[in-house]
Amino acid sequence: MTSTSPDTSVPASALDALKVVVGPTGYLQADSDTEPYRRSWRDGYMGRTPLVLRPKSTDEVSRLVKICADARVPIVPQGGNTGLTFGGQPHEDASEVVISTARMTTIRALDTANDTITVDAGVILKQVQEAASGANRLFPLSLGAEGSCQVGGNISTNAGGVQVLRYGNMRSLVLGLEAVLPDGRIWNGLRGLRKDNTGYDLKQLLIGGEGTLGIITGAVLRLFPKPTATETAWIAVESPAAAVALLGHMKAALGESISAFELIRRAIVDFLLQGVPGHTDPMTDVHPWYVLMDVSSQGAPGSLAGPLGDALGAALEQGLVLDAIIASSGAQAQKLWKMREDMAEAQKAAGGAISHDISVPVSKIAEFVAATDAALEKAYPGIRHCSFGHVGDGNLHFNPVRPLNWDAERFKAERPAINRIVHDQVMAFDGSISAEHGIGRMRLAENLHYKSDVELDFMRAIKVAMDPHNIMNPHKVFMPAKG
Amino acid sequence: MTSTSPDTSVPASALDALKVVVGPTGYLQADSDTEPYRRSWRDGYMGRTPLVLRPKSTDEVSRLVKICADARVPIVPQGGNTGLTFGGQPHEDASEVVISTARMTTIRALDTANDTITVDAGVILKQVQEAASGANRLFPLSLGAEGSCQVGGNISTNAGGVQVLRYGNMRSLVLGLEAVLPDGRIWNGLRGLRKDNTGYDLKQLLIGGEGTLGIITGAVLRLFPKPTATETAWIAVESPAAAVALLGHMKAALGESISAFELIRRAIVDFLLQGVPGHTDPMTDVHPWYVLMDVSSQGAPGSLAGPLGDALGAALEQGLVLDAIIASSGAQAQKLWKMREDMAEAQKAAGGAISHDISVPVSKIAEFVAATDAALEKAYPGIRHCSFGHVGDGNLHFNPVRPLNWDAERFKAERPAINRIVHDQVMAFDGSISAEHGIGRMRLAENLHYKSDVELDFMRAIKVAMDPHNIMNPHKVFMPAKG
Repeated sequence: MTSTSPDTSVPASALDALKVVVGPTGYLQADSDTEPYRRSWRDGYMGRTPLVLRPKSTDEVSRLVKICADARVPIVPQGGNTGLTFGGQPHEDASEVVISTARMTTIRALDTANDTITVDAGVILKQVQEAASGANRLFPLSLGAEGSCQVGGNISTNAGGVQVLRYGNMRSLVLGLEAVLPDGRIWNGLRGLRKDNTGYDLKQLLIGGEGTLGIITGAVLRLFPKPTATETAWIAVESPAAAVALLGHMKAALGESISAFELIRRAIVDFLLQGVPGHTDPMTDVHPWYVLMDVSSQGAPGSLAGPLGDALGAALEQGLVLDAIIASSGAQAQKLWKMREDMAEAQKAAGGAISHDISVPVSKIAEFVAATDAALEKAYPGIRHCSFGHVGDGNLHFNPVRPLNWDAERFKAERPAINRIVHDQVMAFDGSISAEHGIGRMRLAENLHYKSDVELDFMRAIKVAMDPHNIMNPHKVFMPAKG
Repeated sequence: MTSTSPDTSVPASALDALKVVVGPTGYLQADSDTEPYRRSWRDGYMGRTPLVLRPKSTDEVSRLVKICADARVPIVPQGGNTGLTFGGQPHEDASEVVISTARMTTIRALDTANDTITVDAGVILKQVQEAASGANRLFPLSLGAEGSCQVGGNISTNAGGVQVLRYGNMRSLVLGLEAVLPDGRIWNGLRGLRKDNTGYDLKQLLIGGEGTLGIITGAVLRLFPKPTATETAWIAVESPAAAVALLGHMKAALGESISAFELIRRAIVDFLLQGVPGHTDPMTDVHPWYVLMDVSSQGAPGSLAGPLGDALGAALEQGLVLDAIIASSGAQAQKLWKMREDMAEAQKAAGGAISHDISVPVSKIAEFVAATDAALEKAYPGIRHCSFGHVGDGNLHFNPVRPLNWDAERFKAERPAINRIVHDQVMAFDGSISAEHGIGRMRLAENLHYKSDVELDFMRAIKVAMDPHNIMNPHKVFMPAKG
């Protein structure tokens, strides 16, 4: 179709057959056209592909996958392409076609009595939130990329975000799935049921499967009552241990009304104040750590201010808290949350960080931070500690920033060694090297390094059973053939 | 060992090797000794087995399974043997050995900062509840058999109960698993993490797998704050449609504090009053349907009475509710819940029921009940409608009671036909023929009848990949070989 598309191992006959399915407006071939589908939005990865397919229906996806299965053409499924571990981009050898769900954008049904919404995989997360809100419901998944990420990708990566503490991650929000399996057949598991024990819960394999077992084309998602009362607090604490103790105290006092509980290190506040315009320190005194906390309920607006104030007062008396502010308006609450949202930018402004998306049991957070800080400092004197994250889930974005006297290249070259130091500590504290971003290609080698043989064999057995020709996102998550 | 054990296809050499692993106090052979492991506690099923093994550790389970794998000896894993679908008893052909987790009873750890408890598979559910309560926490799974069912069985059947509406079913309560796989290897997935995206979530296959993919030996379970305020209400409504509307009203008013919302048909109240001593009608007037509702929170004792009363008052004004009582004491609340607990006995006293454990989307409950009542009445004039269950989950125990002029034998003979009438309606309303009891052997034929080929193939592919010699609970859930 165009001379600027790359050389590829995909047979021309297969490419032609695929194009026929979606018609002339349903595919892209020129490198300049496919570029947004080949590039990662962070960390500068760029793959190559002979063909990006943009089907409009589950039936089209099924026909595409059947052609690929017959011709043994590998497929990279792609949603909004906002992933952080290179799970959604094609390999640089141009051996894979991309199937994007970007044109599958129908909200199929919203059932307020069942508290469910049924959507195509390509619906943008923000549109789901808005549709729910319009029906006086909450769809609680909320994350930085919500304006462009797609539901199918959120499910394939089992996305997390700031409200997991209360509502669970994407896995907890999915009641039913529709997917095209690696042989091209459509599996209709679009059930809107809260209880169904009629065999293996197959959707659980596709959730978090990162497109290696099939292509999700539709989903039934859970909705919740829309909270009518919300309060936000900015709380100074002495240490991660104090933050964990405060979480226990708050859970006992406020139960499920706690919808976010974010731990923030002073360093990242300094990076914000110095590097990102528009931020001010919420407190006059400087404190070593902070918690940003939301509570919400179905009560009258303002009705949580009293209970939250009482709980914070008791925490102050017990010495769990150094200082605390309850936002006096929605605008002030937004200003506090804007700090949380701009943390990636703050790190960049401070000189760049090496990111880790880790989790440990909540009870081990304090020890983990102390041990990992020490290990990094020993290996790299002058490295700047930076961490923030979802302490209620044991999930920290543990992102050391380069020493002031280093240049960016030198720091970048240490990435594998720094990853290994941090991840060794994660494993020592019974944690996970990827809490919410998945494995993709970025964490593949690390994952193989740490996972047990039993677990890898278990995963490979599933993969081989479901995708014997290894055509579904073959370079991601793990290598099916051992060794 | 004894002349009263049955003839079996299991080689004597394998039986001998298995006995060596557990030692002389670790197995049972005589029919009189194995009888409690072969018998279902409801519906009178009795299987046969040459050997019941009672290992004391995960390592012993592993060694047992390795011997069975090598000798191709089929295994029935068993917990507290309280299941309702014959999933835990051996086949009547005596071809299977039973591995019971009854002697694996250690609570390994309780971590209040992480809100987790780590237990052996054989720990009794009630002991988990009590250990949690002793640490000022709640383990919310609660069901009739809680005094004798085991955690491993609860996980293998993905048990439900009355608090699923708020806390989810067993699947939602499991953070990590340890299991012996069909080749005898131990999989250590005992992670106490709320976020872990490092490959397929393998535990999800074992949860609800009914012992067909491995033997669960240990688990990390989630704990919750122990509620400090609780209220119970008995509410009369006109119809299932009114109950569903009331649920929506209550969710908007009271959010996650609703921890149970049970729908009860008048008929079962009459059966209770007539057939089970100690019950009285909570209301003076007779109403067609009732809701039994619990709310709980972390507030001061009594603090929910006001919000609950306000919400019920508004519902009365809107015509959603005919009458309502809020229990004035813990004793009165217990008396109301005792009615719910005695419903199985009430059915029996009324002449016996044919039970169905079904779910449909909450929004379709009213239509489902009307259509299924009509279909049953047409086929069996005089059949007595009886249903109750977890309307918040769309899960009804839909148990028609025999016509007054029929004898028990005649009614029992109609079981398959009645099952088919009810389950046809379930499928017409996009529901599940087994909401919380699983498939076992009882629902096997029905499940094969209704499941799509794609879904059955998907399940079989997993089963064959994990258990190529089909030794794990081979007669349950589905037949691995198609046809």
